[in-house]
Amino acid sequence: MGREKIAIVGSGNWGSAIAKIAAQNASRQPELFEADRIPMWVFEEEVNGRKLTEIINETRINEKYLPDIKLPDNVWATADLEEAVKDATIFIFVLPHQFLGKTIEQLKGRVSKGARGITLIKGVGVEGGEIQIFADTIERELGISCSALSGANIANEVAAEKFSETTIGYRKREDGEMWQKLFATDFFKVQIVEDVAGVSLCGALKNIVAVGAGFMDGLGWGDNAKAAVMRNGLIEMKNFCLEFFETSKAETFFQESAGVADLMTSCMGGRNRKCAEAFVKTGKSFHELEKEMLGGQKLQGIHTAEDVHNFLKARNRQDGYPLFEAIYECSWEGRDVKTIPKSLDAQPSKSAQPQSSL
Amino acid sequence: MGREKIAIVGSGNWGSAIAKIAAQNASRQPELFEADRIPMWVFEEEVNGRKLTEIINETRINEKYLPDIKLPDNVWATADLEEAVKDATIFIFVLPHQFLGKTIEQLKGRVSKGARGITLIKGVGVEGGEIQIFADTIERELGISCSALSGANIANEVAAEKFSETTIGYRKREDGEMWQKLFATDFFKVQIVEDVAGVSLCGALKNIVAVGAGFMDGLGWGDNAKAAVMRNGLIEMKNFCLEFFETSKAETFFQESAGVADLMTSCMGGRNRKCAEAFVKTGKSFHELEKEMLGGQKLQGIHTAEDVHNFLKARNRQDGYPLFEAIYECSWEGRDVKTIPKSLDAQPSKSAQPQSSL
Repeated sequence: MGREKIAIVGSGNWGSAIAKIAAQNASRQPELFEADRIPMWVFEEEVNGRKLTEIINETRINEKYLPDIKLPDNVWATADLEEAVKDATIFIFVLPHQFLGKTIEQLKGRVSKGARGITLIKGVGVEGGEIQIFADTIERELGISCSALSGANIANEVAAEKFSETTIGYRKREDGEMWQKLFATDFFKVQIVEDVAGVSLCGALKNIVAVGAGFMDGLGWGDNAKAAVMRNGLIEMKNFCLEFFETSKAETFFQESAGVADLMTSCMGGRNRKCAEAFVKTGKSFHELEKEMLGGQKLQGIHTAEDVHNFLKARNRQDGYPLFEAIYECSWEGRDVKTIPKSLDAQPSKSAQPQSSL
Repeated sequence: MGREKIAIVGSGNWGSAIAKIAAQNASRQPELFEADRIPMWVFEEEVNGRKLTEIINETRINEKYLPDIKLPDNVWATADLEEAVKDATIFIFVLPHQFLGKTIEQLKGRVSKGARGITLIKGVGVEGGEIQIFADTIERELGISCSALSGANIANEVAAEKFSETTIGYRKREDGEMWQKLFATDFFKVQIVEDVAGVSLCGALKNIVAVGAGFMDGLGWGDNAKAAVMRNGLIEMKNFCLEFFETSKAETFFQESAGVADLMTSCMGGRNRKCAEAFVKTGKSFHELEKEMLGGQKLQGIHTAEDVHNFLKARNRQDGYPLFEAIYECSWEGRDVKTIPKSLDAQPSKSAQPQSSL
């Protein structure tokens, strides 16, 4: 087997952090990876009158997206996607999900047979009422085997080499092991599991739950209430995947960083939690808050809540997911967040509750 | 079947909060519970020159332990244990664990055959190198069937009727259902599970993990690191119980309030987390911090860590619990908290990590 040639498709905050790790690990394992020059595709933009690619290649710093961290010398920024992926055998997809479709179109015909991919893209796609994980989209469109990486991974903390864990979902164990060798360090521990769907869906669904946790913070209901929402959310995340994505495994949710741990970080910090808290405290709509707090960017949790709501409605399965539904209704239909506990009776044991009025 | 006659054995912060719920629920269900007068045994003390029992019975407020909450009129405080438990058919044990042994001695011969108990006592006992759950101690010593209640239940939040969930572990389903009727409300949701050991151990072991989470906060390592410790901790909690307490169930840890949710509240807030953070930041010993921050009270997490360490050492099973061991060593043996990640390789999948130096 030849050495793997890496292409990093994306260069934002998370892309730069992961480029740092991959480039360092490639240098430490030259028998496995070509390490002289690791291309990182950059969507070119001007920063203080200079091209971002030039800044990165000259200063080793991604001034726009990861300004405090020096990248290794072997990371090579290029705005030319074709050049970035030339001869690549392994592809790391780490770009905002809205750019994936167009990028895939540009890559068609430029990906060699037998190449492998991994997606670090957050969220899920929705096509024709179906929820699509990006690993499946990449596999189908580019004809390569694609794994997924997700976990309790705030990019700045990972880049600063603060202790983190992550999960890689693979389809073939040899793929999982190869990606583990590329990403694992003493401060960034990598577990591998045979569950691409579970790992991918965790990263999307936890944002819904984080909105619910933020509602509790907004109400000032305290840590008991927040933990109750997180617990119910974790169970619904697991149930959703087991019901609709046959290959996913309960253990991914309860035991892996992509599941329970990422849920925790998202509900402790994170923009979904924060905006939801502001939603309750200020009475503003999420549309206003997206403008004010996120510079017009979309808040993933509320849009995923809507996607999941539509998906469940089309299947008449809303009853099975009372917390997801409650968060959707509070976000989009004016339901009072104080009524969320009403939706949470008797999960998961479905044991009887005494009758009483709220 | 006659109506159940309740005795509440204990009257601290949590005891008073639960007395409020039990007394209200008894009033709502007079066909099931004698509701006219619910005795609450109080360890008598003087508060501002008056007896605490008198204050409670006259003002309906436990001025010392739950000063902001009015208790229902049918709660009756008494310093006489014998009077408190007279004719009782159901016993709620909710007192500091160090008083349980003496209280049991006083109760011997005063508990009717067929009576039932539930323990809300935090922690576990250690006798002759064995870890004992209090439900077992109560069953053995008093000859009554004993359930256990534990969950993400900060007492003041529950007393203020903020949304919470809890878990009751039962041995007989009819016991679980009876306790659920006594405790469940619209704001305090009760799940019942056939797992007394799991529910009891969750409440003790999570304090060890909260110490670990506090270490991460003390280091300023951020939410990724904290979530990693919580994830590993949850897995070790589960493994410990399944290995040493045959009847316990993995679901209790991953799905119930007593497990994952209580772990979350303890690691977000809580004294174990807070003192452990101070331990790292100040460099003071836990002995000093117990004096300064807890008025000389013991910090449960570090003492449970020691109990568990001794238990594992006696069985040569320390290797199976690297996080528990690391927290013990950092708390008691001067190990540097920065080395904790080293102990956390390859859980739970035990997959190989690349060699490198920290």
